[in-house]
Amino acid sequence: MPIVTINMVAGRDRAMVQDCLREVAKTVSRTLDAPLSSVRVLVNEVDPELWSVGTTLKSEERPTGPTP
Amino acid sequence: MPIVTINMVAGRDRAMVQDCLREVAKTVSRTLDAPLSSVRVLVNEVDPELWSVGTTLKSEERPTGPTP
Amino acid sequence: MPIVTINMVAGRDRAMVQDCLREVAKTVSRTLDAPLSSVRVLVNEVDPELWSVGTTLKSEERPTGPTP
Amino acid sequence: MPIVTINMVAGRDRAMVQDCLREVAKTVSRTLDAPLSSVRVLVNEVDPELWSVGTTLKSEERPTGPTP
Amino acid sequence: MPIVTINMVAGRDRAMVQDCLREVAKTVSRTLDAPLSSVRVLVNEVDPELWSVGTTLKSEERPTGPTP
Amino acid sequence: MPIVTINMVAGRDRAMVQDCLREVAKTVSRTLDAPLSSVRVLVNEVDPELWSVGTTLKSEERPTGPTP
Repeated sequence: MPIVTINMVAGRDRAMVQDCLREVAKTVSRTLDAPLSSVRVLVNEVDPELWSVGTTLKSEERPTGPTP
Repeated sequence: MPIVTINMVAGRDRAMVQDCLREVAKTVSRTLDAPLSSVRVLVNEVDPELWSVGTTLKSEERPTGPTP
Repeated sequence: MPIVTINMVAGRDRAMVQDCLREVAKTVSRTLDAPLSSVRVLVNEVDPELWSVGTTLKSEERPTGPTP
Repeated sequence: MPIVTINMVAGRDRAMVQDCLREVAKTVSRTLDAPLSSVRVLVNEVDPELWSVGTTLKSEERPTGPTP
Repeated sequence: MPIVTINMVAGRDRAMVQDCLREVAKTVSRTLDAPLSSVRVLVNEVDPELWSVGTTLKSEERPTGPTP
Repeated sequence: MPIVTINMVAGRDRAMVQDCLREVAKTVSRTLDAPLSSVRVLVNEVDPELWSVGTTLKSEERPTGPTP
């Protein structure tokens, strides 16, 4: 019955995020010995303008590559 | 002073969701003996493409009827 | 599939809290037309010393009666 | 390493919200004696139609002035 | 920079939970192409008496085996 | 009406944490032009054994000084 919430900066490729959802579900099921169908994973994509590391917004530090 | 957060798959009729908000506030107030005005209820509508049950995304299992 | 999290100040009678859990699950199921077994409700009891309203801690304002 | 999440009703001026992000990061760093770069602050802007105080939606009580 | 929160019913073996933490961090890093050191994973162990599926508390359905 | 949740590793001095609560409430009130009494701040102290940065648990990296 584990419920997983993943907060990440918005902007990643949708298929990449969905791969993450599925793989995290499998990892949690395997490591916690919980039935796969009992694991729920939710993603919360946060606007890079509304996420800061210290006083630096993610939108201010955004490299061209994939979001760290 | 209870604070309630309801995560649900996006796609429901807005009036239905607002009815849920109000009814949950009343239920919490009644059962916890807390003043109604002290209860806060927030809804987080999650994209069905970003919510998985096991390795199945809600967007992949979406029946035509109301969202389970 | 709604997932409800209720943050409340710790200190209430356990049976009262569990009644709240069950009644909220029924209310969400009814108002969202979602199967009862698909609704999850979690309670997070917060230490009154770690919850403030403005600059006043709940532990500083705690009346003898039931927690607001 | 503190992680701060601020839920607020959507509708405020973006620069005001970002000022809040930065100032909260500084306040947490100062008061917890934690390196500024270790503090993360995320803002979740909630639709006023999906946030209730008791049975009143924020969208129903919205004054013209800044959101309370 | 992904931040993962895992809500699970309290009662599992601590080493099992920590294995889950580490493996989820690796899975998120791999699938999101994010540096491993940028991934944070937090576990919230919830009292089975304060977690309901529908109107059934986890404490009422707890099998002898590992927690689902 | 902002609601702030601060996740931090457990172990800090309680008075330090409460100072953080109060100061964050004031900062949010000031920067968002929201009445102080409308701001709620909750702290969630997480067991250092249940918080990882990458694959390193906070309990494994804990210096003697104040928690980063």
